[in-house]
Formats: sequence, structure tokens, C-alpha cells
Amino acid sequence: MKWHAPQKASGFYSCSSNSINMTTKEDLEAIENQISTIQCSNGDTAGPVLAHGRLKTVEKGRNWGWLLSGFISLNILLLGIAIVSGSVFNKVQISSSHLLIFLILLVILTTVWMVYYKVHTSRVHQAVLYKDSHAGPVWLRAGLVLFGVCSVIMDIFKIMYYVGRMHCESPVKVVFPAVQALFVIVQTYVLWVHAKDCVQIQQNITRFGLMLTLSTNLMVWMTAVTEESLHQTVAPKDPSSNGSSNNGHSYNVTTEGRAEVSECKCFHDMCDVFEKTFYYLYPFNIEYSLFASALAYVMWKNVGRNMDEHHSHKLRFSPWDVLVGPVAGLIILVAGLATFVVYEVDVAEGDPKKTEGALITHYIMNIVAIILMSITCLIGCVVFRMDKREQVSGKNPTRSLDVGLLVGASLGQFLICYFIIVAVLASGVMGSTNRLNLVCAILTVIQLCLQNAFIIKGLHREPFVETETSTVFANVMAVRERDPERRSSSIVPAHTLPIPLGILQGRLSWKRRMIKEICAFLLLCNIILWIMPAFGARPQFDNTVGSDVYEFQTWAVAVNIGMPFGIFYRLHSVASLFEVCLTS
Amino acid sequence: MKWHAPQKASGFYSCSSNSINMTTKEDLEAIENQISTIQCSNGDTAGPVLAHGRLKTVEKGRNWGWLLSGFISLNILLLGIAIVSGSVFNKVQISSSHLLIFLILLVILTTVWMVYYKVHTSRVHQAVLYKDSHAGPVWLRAGLVLFGVCSVIMDIFKIMYYVGRMHCESPVKVVFPAVQALFVIVQTYVLWVHAKDCVQIQQNITRFGLMLTLSTNLMVWMTAVTEESLHQTVAPKDPSSNGSSNNGHSYNVTTEGRAEVSECKCFHDMCDVFEKTFYYLYPFNIEYSLFASALAYVMWKNVGRNMDEHHSHKLRFSPWDVLVGPVAGLIILVAGLATFVVYEVDVAEGDPKKTEGALITHYIMNIVAIILMSITCLIGCVVFRMDKREQVSGKNPTRSLDVGLLVGASLGQFLICYFIIVAVLASGVMGSTNRLNLVCAILTVIQLCLQNAFIIKGLHREPFVETETSTVFANVMAVRERDPERRSSSIVPAHTLPIPLGILQGRLSWKRRMIKEICAFLLLCNIILWIMPAFGARPQFDNTVGSDVYEFQTWAVAVNIGMPFGIFYRLHSVASLFEVCLTS
Repeated sequence: MKWHAPQKASGFYSCSSNSINMTTKEDLEAIENQISTIQCSNGDTAGPVLAHGRLKTVEKGRNWGWLLSGFISLNILLLGIAIVSGSVFNKVQISSSHLLIFLILLVILTTVWMVYYKVHTSRVHQAVLYKDSHAGPVWLRAGLVLFGVCSVIMDIFKIMYYVGRMHCESPVKVVFPAVQALFVIVQTYVLWVHAKDCVQIQQNITRFGLMLTLSTNLMVWMTAVTEESLHQTVAPKDPSSNGSSNNGHSYNVTTEGRAEVSECKCFHDMCDVFEKTFYYLYPFNIEYSLFASALAYVMWKNVGRNMDEHHSHKLRFSPWDVLVGPVAGLIILVAGLATFVVYEVDVAEGDPKKTEGALITHYIMNIVAIILMSITCLIGCVVFRMDKREQVSGKNPTRSLDVGLLVGASLGQFLICYFIIVAVLASGVMGSTNRLNLVCAILTVIQLCLQNAFIIKGLHREPFVETETSTVFANVMAVRERDPERRSSSIVPAHTLPIPLGILQGRLSWKRRMIKEICAFLLLCNIILWIMPAFGARPQFDNTVGSDVYEFQTWAVAVNIGMPFGIFYRLHSVASLFEVCLTS
Repeated sequence: MKWHAPQKASGFYSCSSNSINMTTKEDLEAIENQISTIQCSNGDTAGPVLAHGRLKTVEKGRNWGWLLSGFISLNILLLGIAIVSGSVFNKVQISSSHLLIFLILLVILTTVWMVYYKVHTSRVHQAVLYKDSHAGPVWLRAGLVLFGVCSVIMDIFKIMYYVGRMHCESPVKVVFPAVQALFVIVQTYVLWVHAKDCVQIQQNITRFGLMLTLSTNLMVWMTAVTEESLHQTVAPKDPSSNGSSNNGHSYNVTTEGRAEVSECKCFHDMCDVFEKTFYYLYPFNIEYSLFASALAYVMWKNVGRNMDEHHSHKLRFSPWDVLVGPVAGLIILVAGLATFVVYEVDVAEGDPKKTEGALITHYIMNIVAIILMSITCLIGCVVFRMDKREQVSGKNPTRSLDVGLLVGASLGQFLICYFIIVAVLASGVMGSTNRLNLVCAILTVIQLCLQNAFIIKGLHREPFVETETSTVFANVMAVRERDPERRSSSIVPAHTLPIPLGILQGRLSWKRRMIKEICAFLLLCNIILWIMPAFGARPQFDNTVGSDVYEFQTWAVAVNIGMPFGIFYRLHSVASLFEVCLTS
């Protein structure tokens, strides 16, 4: 009996094939099994059910728990936004203590859940059957630990600072950093160990817990960003004149500005030092929250996901494959570090002449780096177009998040650039500092677009599988010698043939080598562009055009929201470029 | 020769099957074709290529054009944000004329592209091979036309108003509404006719054009929201006292407030009338931009997509299936309309006593409606849990967008509610008005969560296919009579058997009927909750607690961003509930 191909209109395509009676039934079943394995490993679908002539998947992941945990997170965040707004605009009825009590509650709840999760998953055998090899890459977890350590130090300084002012400040201000330090330690440990988990038991409780973790981290992030912005906005003693006069380095002025505002006296001498230090550590805490949020989100996406680990390719990294890229990158890195030190020293002196000189050096250095980066990105994109390779398909929460975070984080930098462009154009482009600022901003926009395109394309390409291809090729050689008539046998797929012989001699094709050189160069350039803002360069405030054109408050908010994302973007680019380099 | 099932480790599963030598090769190919048809109709993948033991799809949709058009849209929007911020905070160097010139350029470019698109697709035969039956539902297109007409009227009033002030205002202010009116007419026509297109030729140009359309609409939206917020913020003549005194109806005061600020005199008598009218029409223009953005986005997602139209089920809608829901809904609707009219009349008088009475009536009306809606939503969710049905799978840009827009638009309402909750709690919950306000806000949050869950679950259920099932059932009856031994034949899928006989007699099962009743009731309730804010009820401003606790400016911005989304949310819910009602 011949097996009929199903008709579109009313045919049923039964997965069990009970009624099919044919000779190659086993073969068909083998194919079907293969296909269903492929389907299962592609996403969080539990298994395909073929019916009504359409492929339907039982979406286990998208159940009520998924929906409700999302809503709970949404509600916590929106309530948080309302409380933060209230505490900013109305210091009498909604004080910062109310906000801190809300945060303490969230942080304690999250910590309790994480301890419960740790205990529960270690006791139950089948809690975590699968691990997502893409989730929680080592750079993200290492960054988490690094920034976590900085956050804990910040909390210790905060505790000491507020203990010294205990007689006039609310005790909540001491309790919060203490609780937060505990939270950071527990969370860093749990995320380090469990970032790759695809949890299979108590899925709903885990979803709620992870969404709670995400909300808590985003709330801490929001509070830190607001506090940092307020801290900088208090700085100008006379808000009407801050635009025209140069305030020197914002951190110093700010601290003094705040010391004047508050009438509470500290009872030990170290308060000023502590305050300066913990405000200096704020950006690290902001980064920590972003990192933890990213990891919690990926874990939430992976709850209940079934996947096998066989897909991860062992990728070889040899630093000797490339030469020009790293050397050029190192030159840029060293030059950048030198100008950065000069910039910091000159600006700290507070002399307007010296500040302008430092700004000009800083802009020229940036312009040179960014032009070179743009050119290499462009070359990289052209090479990608020439070296056509298949695109990776299938759902992968981590890669989607990677791309989303990359584009999302770049928005911060984009925003600042466009604010600068509009401000400089509006103020008539006077003076060489402004002209350089404008050129730098325009070039940065171009560079961001090109780099995003390069990284996204790179991440979506199928990794180059060296061992497998060369094995097949070697087999073909052997086959050819022994059995000439089987040359067109089915073992050799057509697409492996055009690979050059060079690969057998351990050399890379020029295209792959070029991509690796480009990645290495871009990686080092992104490191210097990360170091500069992360360690305190704020040309946006040292150059007064932004605060001249916009009000200082708007400008401070724009920079303080945009800048941490910009820093995150550079760090994330470094990691993504490393991945592109490995897979190319 | 026996065909070997591919091994996971290194096997190749070639799609072309050139070298497979077996008896049922044709059968295998038939299955493969079937699978690839299923795949193709599921998403925007062009065709699957099976290799390396994994399912890979050639992601045609995600090419360079896709990426670049996204970046261009991003850049236009960010530049727009910078210009809008500049024109708000710095009226000297970046005037509103600069912003308008930028908008005029965008609008003209978009109009030219749309005319080109229309001409080109009508001349080329194979331009649009497929249509997405889910895209551009009739309510969205009807809403577009309705709001488009209002926008054109607004533009005409604007032109007349600014012509009267030509001697002291920039001519750009007359040019912009004229160009915008043309743009609205062209865009409404093009989107009405082409909303369902899956364009196949000149894909990159079409992607750029659609992203340009999206950016232009979002820019127009952003400008309108900002203008509306500024317009309301100018209102209080003495900003320090606006919190404690009741300003009566915001529109009137606002207009007077602005008339005082400007020293330019209109040379015809109708200016005041025109200004009042066009500010009254602003919300419609804001909605128009959101609708057009949604349609442009779906068209962009559909560029290059291949799909067949056979999946659309013919759904029957009979108003006689349901009774209790519509009647209860109509009662709420009429009661709501009555209290709305009373509210508007009482508030317009400006007497604080009457305003408070009006507010109390308004809140009680809302609380009653929202409690009933929450209960019905909860019942609906419970019925969904009991009546397990398969979930719709497969990528569908329109459904994803529907859910995204629903949740996204509800954020606006959520935000306002949480701001109110925090404000009332912070001010100590004094007076019955405040207590009612608090209760109303908390209940609204609950209702939004429940309604979102109900609609999302409803949209993701597989539609009830009446005709197909009853045909199969009838066939089975016939088969049973004629051929008793074939009772367990493969034609009867197991899942069609438990359907009750009632269906043959034209009656619905109680679960389906209940869902339909619930949808009808919620639909009518959402209509009244749409009418109230859309036609001018602003209890957020008439009740002073919001502007007391937050600064007036913050409060106006929060309400003016949140409110249009809230209005859009109610309208969108109506449409989604109608769809859930049909498919249940």
C-alpha cells in the first residue's frame, strides 16, 4: 500500500503513523524522530504535535506562571517608579526613607528566595536536568563578581559614613547598605553557580523568584541612577550661572556642594573620604545591577526549557593567528591610556585653559580611534558579505538577549551623541573645542551603527567547524585513492568542496584571518573606550555646551542615564567581539 | 540499498536527496515538501535547510536591509528626541520652528515614498504575491480613518489659526499643518489599501520606506504629546498655588493662560475658537500616529514573507448566542454615559463643592464597573483553565504585536494608577474623595492584570473550528451506519469525539457561551472606559492630590504620556475582546 502524502485541505498528518503500512516505515519513523529532536532542541517547546495539516507545539513555557510572574515584575517596577518620582519631587511626604524601606523589603525577599532555591535544587535530584551552554558566559559572571566586590566595598563605606551621622539621619540609611551587601554576596554566589540552569521542578515558584530578582535589581539600578543624578545636580551652587562658568571636575564640586546643603555634622573625621569614595563606586554598583538583571532574565527564559548540550562546539583560540590587529589595537590602547591620564590630571586642576587643552587632546584621541574602528568595521562587513555562510537558526534566548542588550545599551551612547550634535549646532559651532566635539559625536554615531551591524552579523553566522570539515575532506582524499568510481558518493556534501587546501596546512583563509584581525583590533579599542568613562572621564560635564543649551538638570539626567549604558555597551562589545573572533 | 537515518554526531541530512537510492524516495520527498510547507507558512523563513543534524533556516528576512532600516529609524528617532528636548528646555537657540522644519522634511520624504510605493506596486505584477490575513484588522484601519479625519480637521483649524497670526509667527507654523494634512490623507489611503501586503520586490527600499513611515509617525506622536503637555503646564497662572486651588476644567484655563503669555494678536475673531478646537482634537492626532505606527510596523515585519492564505477560518458571529453579557454591559455603558455628562457639566462650572461631588460620582461609577469587570475576567480565566484547548503556535507578527501593544499600552494606565496610589498614601488618605481615588486606582491595577491575562490567553488559544469538526462528525455517523467494522478507522481523530451533540442542534457548550458572554460584557465596559478619557474627563487634574504631591510639571508629563496609552489600551482591548469572542 502506497503511503499518501497528506493533502492540505483536510488531511491529517498523524505523528504516531499507526495506520501507515509500508516497507520503509522504520525509515520514515527515523526521519520523524530526527525532525522532532531538532524541533525540541530548538526552543522551549515540549514536542510538536502534527494535526490539522499544521505544526502545533504545546507551549509549555507560555503558561499562567510565565504570564503572572511577568505581571508581578511589572507591578513592582511601576510602583517603584512612582515611589522614586515621589521621593525626588516631594521630599516631605515621600522621603528617601520610604524608598529605602521598599528596597529593603524587596532585597530581603529576594535573598530569602535565593537561599531557598539553592537549598531546594541541591536537595532534589532532578531539579536541573539541562544546562544552557550559551547562558551566563564567563565574562558576564566575571564582571558580576568584579562589580559585586566593588558594590560590597561601596556598601561598607556607606555604612561607616551613615554610622557617623546616626544622630541626625534615619537608621534605615545604615540598614539598607548592610542588607544590600548581604544580598550582593548571596546573589553573586547563586548566579555564578546557577546561571546556566534550566530548572525543571517548581517551575512557577522559580519563575516568580527570578522575576522578583530581576525587579529588585532593576529597582536598585533605578535608585542608584537617580541618586547619582541628584548628586551631580546639587553640584552647581548657583544654578543660573553654572552654564557659563566652568565647574572644574564635577565630583569634587558636587561633594562640597552637598556638604554645604546638609547641616548634619559627622562625628568622625573620615566622613568626607567615605562619601567621596562611595560616590566614586556608584557606577560599579549600577553596572552590577545591569549584569545581574541580564543573568536573571536569561535564567527566567530558560525555566522549563529542554535542550541537549551536544551543540556546543569546542572552539580553538590561538593568539598567534593574528598579528596586525592586536598590535594596532595595543598602540591605540596605550595612547588612549596616556591621554586619559593627562586629561584627568589637567581637568582636576580646574584651570579653564588647561581644561580646554585636555578636552582637545581627548577629542582628537577619540576621533582617531573611532575613524580607525569605523573603517575596520566597514571592511569586516564587506568581508562578511563576500564570505557567505549559513545563518544560525533556532530560538536561543541568550543570543536574542545578547543582540537586544547590544542595541539597547548602544541607545544610551546614541542619545548622548545626538544631544551633543543638536547642542553644538544650536550654539553655532564656535571654537575648535566645539567643532571637535561635533565631529567626535557624528563619528561615534557612525561607528556605533557599523559596529552593531558587524557584531550582529557575526553572532548570527554559523560557527566555522574546523575539525569536522577537515575530517570529511581527509576521508574524501582517502576514498578517491582507494575507490575512484565512488567519487560522487553521498558522503561528500557539495558545500565542503570549495574549502581551500590551506586549511590542512594549519593556515587560515585570508577572509577568516581578516575577521580575526578586525575583531582583535576592535576589542582592544573598545577596552580603551570603556576605561575612559568607567574611570571618571566626563567630557560631557567638563565641556559646558550641553548644560548651556539644555538646562543643567536635563543634561545631567540624559548623561547619567546614557553613560552607564554606554559603559555597559563597550564591555558587552568586547565580549561579543571575542565570541565573533572565536566562531569566525 | 537501505537508507541510513542520520546520526546526530556527524551525519548530513541533505535536503536535495540526490544521492539517496531507495524505493520510496518520492514518498520521502513528499513528506519533506509537506514539512517545508508547514515551516514556510509558520514564519518568515524562506525554506528549511537540514544540515549538521539541525534545522537551519535561511533567514531571508534578517538581511542587511532589515538591519540598516532599523538603524536608520533609530537614528531619526534619537535625533528627534534631542531636538524635542532642546526645543522644550531652550526656546532661544532651538526654537519650535527648527523642530517643525525637521518634521516637514520627514513628512514630505515619507509622502513621496508612499506615492512611489503605490505607483510601483500597482505597475509591477508580482510586487505583492501574498497577503497576511492577520495584518491590518478592520478595526485598526477604521480607527485610522476616523482619527485621520479628525487629524485633518485639526490641521485645517491650525492653518486658519496661524494664518490669523501670520504677521508675528513663523510661516513654518502654517506650512507644517498643510503638509501634515496631505501626509495624513496619503498615508490613510495607502495603509487602508496595502496594510496586508507581504511585499516581494525591492524589499530593501520597501523596508527603508516603512521604517521611515514608522519614524515619522512616532516623531509626530512625540511632538504632539510634548505640545499637549506644555500646553497644560502653562495653564496655572501662579505655579506655586496651583496645587491648593482648584483650576476648574483644565482646557479652558489653559487656553486663557496661553493667551496671556503670548503678546501676538490674531487679526480675525475666530482665533480663540480655532485654538480651543484644535487642542481638543490633539488626542485624536496622537491616537492616529499610534495606529499608523502599528500598521507600518506590521507591514515592515511582513516584507519578503511567504505565507498562504488558507489558514484563515471563516468565523461566524451571531449576536443571539449571548444575552446576559451584552445587557449587563449596556447598563454599565448607559450609566457611565450619564455620570460622564453630569461630571463634565459639574466640573465645567468651576465650583469646588460641585467638582468634589462630580469626582465622587465618577469614582463610584468607575469602581462599580471595574469590580464587575475584574470578577468576569477572573471567571473567564477559570473557564479557560477548565476548557483546555491547544495553543496557537508559529510566528505571527500581528499576534505578537497585538500582545505587545496590549501590555505596552496598559503600562500607561498602570503608571498613572501607581502614581495616584503613592500620592494618596503619602498625603495621608484624607477625605472621601481621596479614599475613593485610592480604591479606584488599586482596583484598576487588579483589573488591568486580569484583563491582560484573559485577553492574552484568549488570543493564544486555537480557534474553535465548527464546520470542520461537525463535517468529520457527520461523516463518522455515516461511516458507522454503512460500515460497522471500520469504526476505529484512522479517519476519526480521537480528539473530535468528546464534542457534545448539542453542537449539531446549533447550541453552544456552556463554556463557550460563558466566554462569549464575558467578552461581550467586557467589550462594552471597555467602550465606556474609553469614552470618558477620550472625550475630556481628566479627574487626574480635577483632583489636586497628584499635583500636590509631585510637582505639577512632573504630574502633567506623567498623565500626558500615560493617558493616550490608556485610551489606546481600551480601544485595543475592545478589538481584542471581539477577536476572542469570535474564536472562542
